Amino acid sequence: MLKLYYAPGTCALASHIALAEAGAAYTTERLDFKANQQNSPDYLKINPKGRVPTLVTDRGNLTETPAMLAFIAQSFPQAKLAPLDDAFAFAQVQAFNSYLCSTVHVAHAHKARGPRWATDETSFADMKRMVPKTVGACFALIERGMLKGPWVMGEQYTICDPYLYTLATWLEGDSVDLATLPKVADHRKRMSERPAVQKVLAEEKA
Amino acid sequence: MLKLYYAPGTCALASHIALAEAGAAYTTERLDFKANQQNSPDYLKINPKGRVPTLVTDRGNLTETPAMLAFIAQSFPQAKLAPLDDAFAFAQVQAFNSYLCSTVHVAHAHKARGPRWATDETSFADMKRMVPKTVGACFALIERGMLKGPWVMGEQYTICDPYLYTLATWLEGDSVDLATLPKVADHRKRMSERPAVQKVLAEEKA
Repeated sequence: MLKLYYAPGTCALASHIALAEAGAAYTTERLDFKANQQNSPDYLKINPKGRVPTLVTDRGNLTETPAMLAFIAQSFPQAKLAPLDDAFAFAQVQAFNSYLCSTVHVAHAHKARGPRWATDETSFADMKRMVPKTVGACFALIERGMLKGPWVMGEQYTICDPYLYTLATWLEGDSVDLATLPKVADHRKRMSERPAVQKVLAEEKA
Repeated sequence: MLKLYYAPGTCALASHIALAEAGAAYTTERLDFKANQQNSPDYLKINPKGRVPTLVTDRGNLTETPAMLAFIAQSFPQAKLAPLDDAFAFAQVQAFNSYLCSTVHVAHAHKARGPRWATDETSFADMKRMVPKTVGACFALIERGMLKGPWVMGEQYTICDPYLYTLATWLEGDSVDLATLPKVADHRKRMSERPAVQKVLAEEKA
């Protein structure tokens, strides 16, 4: 049985949705970020990075959203969440998810996680001011050339979709104008109508 | 025939080494970062992100190091650069590479790429001051728990190794003390002795 450690409002939502879409048998455990539970000694034994998500499997613990999403797709091939028999198409899926992880999420993180990379309040404020522009530029690139529609990779729903959806739910908080991103907005709406997404959101809010 | 766009001193080195280790037929094209060639109109048609590496294939262009490394491993299975028949072991490889991409490389980038996330000189200086600490903390985690030895994943050389090697060549420039990282230093030395690594380094320096 798989077990997902998550916190509401974090990128763990992507893996949570993917597990539900895959029809996986899984349990979840919620961490309290306000109590800094992700840095508690008990959790650091599970994930020494002090972050979510972590996926506990019978072979050991996995971290890093792009790796977990590919693992879920490969472990539940009948759900067809990635083009597993086509190395190039799989690489396109992975490239999209890697961009979300290493560029888009990182741009967003400069709003509230400035202390990861600097020490002065003035630097944090400077970083925070730039977030609408940097996150906006990332999503403009996605809108213009990466999101094929109706799903990220075109007709086939993949592990790119819950990940894009997750980061797109942060856009208003990052002061990016959704009106400039009609394809992203349409994708987010279509995602929000999927039963697996509604089930997971209800669980994370409960 | 594959074609790799790279610039010396960048993370493109990881994919370059992987291509050589795989025995792939490939050509390379060097970009001049000092002339900002990565943002030239011609290159932006190849990679709209204005970054390296880009791998041109007969199916289209790929970006993002973790995706390219997995693609190389899957395209040249005889080179055994990843555990392709074991979803969990493959996910461990991917998790390691995702950490390098989204956390370690990002920490390093705050030394010279401050304008990506802020606008003030004081913020750039603040970010730069923190790099020895943040990159040092990342590599301490790698040293302590992630680098199994002799290679990252243990006895089998994988696509994690050229990527770790690439980022480890930046440690002195980031003022991280190699003496505190004996396993990483040993790994870097062993990597530098591989014929594929020597061939690629000679080509990038030529």
